[in-house]
Amino acid sequence: LIYSYLYRGAGWLVISLVGLATGFCAGIIDIGASWMSDIKLGICVNAFWLNQEECCWVQNNTAFGEEGCSEWYTWSEVFGHSTIDAGSYILNYIFFVMLSVIMAFLAVIFVRAFAPYACGSGIPEIKTILSGFIIRGYFGAWTLVIKSITMVLAVASGLSLGKEGPLVHVACCCGNLFAYLFPKYHQNEAKKREILSAASAAGVSVAFGAPIGGVLFSLEEVSYYFPLKTLWRSFFCALVAASVLRWINPFGTDHLVMFYVEYNTPWSFYELVPFSVLGILGGLYGVLFIKLNLWWCNYRKSSNLKRHPVLEVVVLALITAIISYPNPYTRQSSSRLIATLFKECGPEDDIDLCDYKRNFTRVDQSIYPTAEAGPGVTNALWQLSLALVVKAALTVFTFGIKVPAGLFIPSIAVGAIAGRIAGVVMEQVAFNNPSWFDSCSATGKCVTAGLYAMVGAAACLGGVTRMTVSLVVIMFELTGGLVYIVPLMVAVVISKWVGDAFTKGGIYDGHIELNDYPYLDSKREFIHNTLAADVMRPRRGSPELTTFTQDNMTVEDIEMLVSETTFNAFPVVVSKESKRLVGLVYRKELVQALKKSRNKYNAVSQSKVCFTNEMPLHPSPDSPSPINLLYIVDQSPFQVTDQTPANTVVEIFSKLGLRTCLVTQNGTLHGIITKKDVLGHIGALESIHPESMLFQ
Amino acid sequence: LIYSYLYRGAGWLVISLVGLATGFCAGIIDIGASWMSDIKLGICVNAFWLNQEECCWVQNNTAFGEEGCSEWYTWSEVFGHSTIDAGSYILNYIFFVMLSVIMAFLAVIFVRAFAPYACGSGIPEIKTILSGFIIRGYFGAWTLVIKSITMVLAVASGLSLGKEGPLVHVACCCGNLFAYLFPKYHQNEAKKREILSAASAAGVSVAFGAPIGGVLFSLEEVSYYFPLKTLWRSFFCALVAASVLRWINPFGTDHLVMFYVEYNTPWSFYELVPFSVLGILGGLYGVLFIKLNLWWCNYRKSSNLKRHPVLEVVVLALITAIISYPNPYTRQSSSRLIATLFKECGPEDDIDLCDYKRNFTRVDQSIYPTAEAGPGVTNALWQLSLALVVKAALTVFTFGIKVPAGLFIPSIAVGAIAGRIAGVVMEQVAFNNPSWFDSCSATGKCVTAGLYAMVGAAACLGGVTRMTVSLVVIMFELTGGLVYIVPLMVAVVISKWVGDAFTKGGIYDGHIELNDYPYLDSKREFIHNTLAADVMRPRRGSPELTTFTQDNMTVEDIEMLVSETTFNAFPVVVSKESKRLVGLVYRKELVQALKKSRNKYNAVSQSKVCFTNEMPLHPSPDSPSPINLLYIVDQSPFQVTDQTPANTVVEIFSKLGLRTCLVTQNGTLHGIITKKDVLGHIGALESIHPESMLFQ
Repeated sequence: LIYSYLYRGAGWLVISLVGLATGFCAGIIDIGASWMSDIKLGICVNAFWLNQEECCWVQNNTAFGEEGCSEWYTWSEVFGHSTIDAGSYILNYIFFVMLSVIMAFLAVIFVRAFAPYACGSGIPEIKTILSGFIIRGYFGAWTLVIKSITMVLAVASGLSLGKEGPLVHVACCCGNLFAYLFPKYHQNEAKKREILSAASAAGVSVAFGAPIGGVLFSLEEVSYYFPLKTLWRSFFCALVAASVLRWINPFGTDHLVMFYVEYNTPWSFYELVPFSVLGILGGLYGVLFIKLNLWWCNYRKSSNLKRHPVLEVVVLALITAIISYPNPYTRQSSSRLIATLFKECGPEDDIDLCDYKRNFTRVDQSIYPTAEAGPGVTNALWQLSLALVVKAALTVFTFGIKVPAGLFIPSIAVGAIAGRIAGVVMEQVAFNNPSWFDSCSATGKCVTAGLYAMVGAAACLGGVTRMTVSLVVIMFELTGGLVYIVPLMVAVVISKWVGDAFTKGGIYDGHIELNDYPYLDSKREFIHNTLAADVMRPRRGSPELTTFTQDNMTVEDIEMLVSETTFNAFPVVVSKESKRLVGLVYRKELVQALKKSRNKYNAVSQSKVCFTNEMPLHPSPDSPSPINLLYIVDQSPFQVTDQTPANTVVEIFSKLGLRTCLVTQNGTLHGIITKKDVLGHIGALESIHPESMLFQ
Repeated sequence: LIYSYLYRGAGWLVISLVGLATGFCAGIIDIGASWMSDIKLGICVNAFWLNQEECCWVQNNTAFGEEGCSEWYTWSEVFGHSTIDAGSYILNYIFFVMLSVIMAFLAVIFVRAFAPYACGSGIPEIKTILSGFIIRGYFGAWTLVIKSITMVLAVASGLSLGKEGPLVHVACCCGNLFAYLFPKYHQNEAKKREILSAASAAGVSVAFGAPIGGVLFSLEEVSYYFPLKTLWRSFFCALVAASVLRWINPFGTDHLVMFYVEYNTPWSFYELVPFSVLGILGGLYGVLFIKLNLWWCNYRKSSNLKRHPVLEVVVLALITAIISYPNPYTRQSSSRLIATLFKECGPEDDIDLCDYKRNFTRVDQSIYPTAEAGPGVTNALWQLSLALVVKAALTVFTFGIKVPAGLFIPSIAVGAIAGRIAGVVMEQVAFNNPSWFDSCSATGKCVTAGLYAMVGAAACLGGVTRMTVSLVVIMFELTGGLVYIVPLMVAVVISKWVGDAFTKGGIYDGHIELNDYPYLDSKREFIHNTLAADVMRPRRGSPELTTFTQDNMTVEDIEMLVSETTFNAFPVVVSKESKRLVGLVYRKELVQALKKSRNKYNAVSQSKVCFTNEMPLHPSPDSPSPINLLYIVDQSPFQVTDQTPANTVVEIFSKLGLRTCLVTQNGTLHGIITKKDVLGHIGALESIHPESMLFQ
C-alpha cells in the first residue's frame, strides 16, 4: 500500500523538485547576469563580486545616479583617469566593447563545443516536442548546464536578447532530469510531457515572477494537450519555483516581480484611442519583425553564413556594443531600461527623461501633476527614438543566432520605448490643452506616461508572439498594474487582429515551419470539404498498399517487403482478397522479432509467419515450423472510413495525438494516413486558399 | 465577398453583443439588488430610488456610520419613532423580517409561474449542456428576464445566496439569444457552445469584475471543449462586458472590482503556517458542506418537501431574517460584510471590529502599527463566530431551493469570517510576543488581518468548488491584492488536497450526479485495464446485436425490428454472415425515411430496402421496386477494435464528444458502445475501486 501511495505521489514529488530546481537555477542566472552586465561598465573595488547597485547599497549610498557611487569604479577610474574627459570616455568605451565581444565569444564557443541544442530560445522546439515529436538529448543535463552558463554570458554581453525563452528551456531540462528518476515518468512519454508542460509554466513563472502568467503561457503557447490535472500541477510547480526565487531574492527588493510600478492613477476612456493606436503599431511591428527575421534566418540557412556561426555572433556583438554605448538608453541592460520606462518620474529621478519644469514642494505626494517638459525631455525623446530603431533592427538579426536568445525582453523594450514616447507626447498635448480632457482638472494629472510604455510593450509582444490572455496576465503580474487590465486587453486584442490580418502565426510558429518540425496545430480549425479518401495513401491510381497477410507469408517474403519499402508500419490483413484488417505492425519491432526468431527459434527463410491466434496446422512434418508474431501486432489501430470528412480526421489526429490511422470501407482496408499525410494535405489546401485563414 | 466577410465576422459580432448585453444586465441587477437590500432597513425620504450610500452621498454626508445620515430614515423613523429605544428596534425588526419574506415569496412565485429553469445556480446545468447534452429552453428569453428579476429579489431578501452563478446563467441566456440571430450559430450546436463558453466568461467577469478570472473559470470549471479560439473570444467577451459594467459604474466607485483593498503590506514566510491551517479548514468545510448539502437535497427529493417549494423558501427566508437581524454582521448584505472583513481598520472606521487602543496621530499614514485590541474587538469576534455558524448552516439549506441561488458569495463570506477571526487572533499573539516574529520590529506592523480574511475566503471557496487557478485569479482581481498570490495559492492548493482526499468532485459535480445529468468528465483520467470488448454491448453471452443487412431486407422487416427495439441507432452490415460494417442508421431518420418512401414512392411492405450504391437488379418485373436509403446512412461512424484499451475508448468519447462508436474485429462488426455504456462502465469500476480516485 505504501508503495502504491509512493507511486501515486511521485507526480507531486517530481513537480516539487522541478519547481525547486527551476527557482534555484533562475536565481543563480539572475544574480550572474546582473553582475556580468555591470562588469562591462566598471567594478566594485573592495568587493568585486557585487554589482553596481549592491556595491553602492553596501555603502549606504542609495541615491546613486548614472555616474555611480564612490566605491564603484568605472574602468577608466581603475586605470587612473579619474577626471571625466574624452580619454576616459574612450577607455570606458573600449572596455565596454571588448568585454561584450569576449562574453559573446565565450557563449557561442561553449554552445558549439558542448551543447549545440543550447542555442536559440527553445520554445519552438519545446512546442514540437510537446506535440509528440522526439528530439533526443534536447533536454539533457549537459544542455541544462551549458544553457545556464551561456545565458548569463549572452545576456551580459549586451546583445539584443532576453533570458525568458531560454529559462523555459532550462526548466524543461530540469523537468526531464527529474522525470528520469521515476520509472513511472521515465517509461511513459505522455506522462513525461505532462511534467514538461508544468516545467514550462515554472520557467515563465521565474522569468517574470508571474506564476499565473506562466501557467497560462504553458496552456496557450507551449502545451499541446493540457488536461485539468496538468493545469493544476503546473500551478503548483510555478508556485514552488516562484517561492524559491523570492527566497533567493536576486533583485534585492522584496517584490517577486521585476518591473513593479507604484502608481495606480486611473485612466480615462478617451485614452483608449491612443492605446488602440499603440495596439495597431504593435501589430504592425510584429508582422514586420516576423517577416524580416524569417527572411534573415532563411538567408542564413541558404548562404555561407551558416558555416561561420561564431564569427556571426562576434561581429553582431561588436556592432551591438559599438552602437549601444553612446546612447544611455541602449547602454544599460534592457531590463533596467524597461523598469525606467514603466516608472513615473518622481522627485528623486534626475535623468533627462524626468526633466520637467515643476517644483516638488511635498516629497511624499503620491501623484505629481502633469508639468511642462524641459529641454532634457526633448533630448531624451530623441535618444529614445534612436534606441527604438537600433533595438528593433538588432533584434531581427539576433533572434536565431547560436547562443541562448529569448525574444520577450527585446520586444517589451521596443514596445516600452515606443509607448513611452507616445505617452510623453500625449502628456504634453494634454498639458497644453487641458480643456480637451476633463479628467485633468480634478487632480492636475492627465496622462500617465509609464502606463503608455506598458501598453506599448504589451502590444509589441502581442504582435510578435500572438499571445492573448497569458500576455495580459504576465503584463499585470510583471508590473502589479491590476487596474490597467482594460487598456492592456484593448492593446493586445487590436495588436493580434492587425497581426493576424497579415501573417497567420506568431514568431514561434514561423520558426517551427522554418525548421520543418512536424507540428500539427491542435488549436486551429480545418474548414475544407475533403474526405479521408483524399488524404490517405495510396492515392487513387497509385499502386496498392503494402500489406501482410495473416497466415501465408514466409520469413523471406516479409524480409523482402521490409527491405524494399521505407514505411514505418505495415497493416496486417486476413487475406489479400478480403483485405479485412487484423492490425498494424511497426517496422522496428518487426525487424527485431524476425532477427530474434532466426537466432533463437531457428526460423529459416521458408518458415511460415503468422499473425493469428490459431496456428496453422503443420502442412508436412519436414517443412520448418511456423513462427507466430501476433504479440508484436498492434491489434487496436485507429481506423476511419474513407467517407469520413477530412476535418474529422484532422481532429482525431490533433486531439488524440495519433501518428497513424487506417482507412477502411465496408470492413476492408483501403489505405493508411500518417501525420505527415495530414500535414501535407493541410499545407496543400492552405496554399490554394490562403484567405481562409483570415478571421480565425 | 462582403457576405463572406460578414459571415466570418459574425462570431465577433455575436461576442460583442453578448458582452454588451451581459454587462448591461449585470449593471441593472447590481443597482437593483443594492437598492432592494437597503429598503429592508429604511428609505431615503426625498429620493426613494437611492440606496443608503447614495442617499447619504447626495447629502455630502460621506462619513455615514451604522445609523445612517439625516436623509436616510429607518422604518421606525418613518413611522415617527425618532428615538432609539426598544419599540423602534422591534418595529425595524418586524419590517426587516416582513420585507425579507415578501421578497423571497415574490421570487419563488415568479420562478414557479414563469420560468422553472430560472432556479438554482445554473452552473451544473451549463456544464452539462456544454458537454453536449441538450435541455430545451434552458437558455430561453423568458428565463433571462425572470432570472434577472428574481435574482434581485432573492439577493435582497437576505437569504444566504449570491448572484454570481445566476449571472453566468443570465450571460449564457444572452449568448443563446444572440446566437439565434445568426444562422451560422443557430444551426450548429457545437458553434453555439463556443458562444456559451465565452458568455460564461463574461458572466463571471461582471459578477466579480474579474475578466481574466472569468476566462479561466470558463476554461477550468464550465467548458468541456475549450480550443484556443474560444479562449481568445471569451477574453474579448469578458472585456466588453467588464467595460460596459465599468461604464454603468453600479458601485459608485471607479474601481471595477467590489472588494478592492488599499494595502499592500508584505507578508512574512512564517505566516504560511496559519495560511496552511486556513487551507486545511477550508478544505474540511468544503467537504462537510458538500456532504450536508447533497444529503439535504436528496432528502428534499425523496420527501414531501419537494411538493411545497414555495413554503420551503418562505420558511427559510423567515428563519434567515429572524436570525440575521440581531447580529450586525449578518444583518448587512454579504457583499458589504465581505468588503468590511477584507479591509484594514483605518482611523475613519468606528465599528467594533476596529476598536484598537491606538492614537492616530497622522491620518495620512498608510500603515497602522499593530495595536492592542479593545473590548469592542472581543465583542466583534463573538458576533463574528456566531455569524460564521449561522451563515454556514443556512447556506447548506439554501443552495438548491427554487430561487436563483449562487454559492460564491456565501462561501466567501464564511471563509472571510473565519479568516478574519484567525487574523485578529494572530495579530494579538504577535502584539503580545513581538520577539517571536522578526518582521514586527521594522514597521510595527506584524499581521494584516484583512489578508487572513482573503486567504480564508479563497480556502473555503476552493474547498467547495475545487477550482484552482481560476479561483486565485478571481481572488486577486477581486481584491487587487496582487502581492498576495503566494498566500492565496498555498491556501487553495492545500484546501483542494484536503477536499479531494474526502470527496472526489466539487459541489457542481455533486449536483450533476444528484440530477443524473449525462456528464462525462473530460478532465479526469481513466486508469483501469479493461478493453473495449468489456464496455460494448452485446455483452459476452447476450443475444446478438440488431443489425440491418445491406441489400436483402424488406420494408416490413425493418419496421418490425425498429418497433421491437428501443435502440437509437442500427449498424448496417454487408451481410449477416460476413458482418462487414457499412455504416450506421439513426432511428429518427430511418422512421422518417420509411414514412416518406411509403407516402411518396409507393413503397409497400414487401419492397426491398437497400443501403448500397449498386441497386440490385429487379428480380422480376412484378415485384415492387426497391428503395435505396443509402442517403440516411452515416458512412463514417467511429470504430475501434475490440482489443482497444478502455481508457482509449474513454479518451475518444470525451475528447471527440462522441455518442456512439462501433466495435470491430478483423473487419467484422462485434458490438456497439454508447456514451451511456461508457459512463456505466466507469461508474461500475469506480464503485469497485473507489480509492483509485485519490491522488488524481
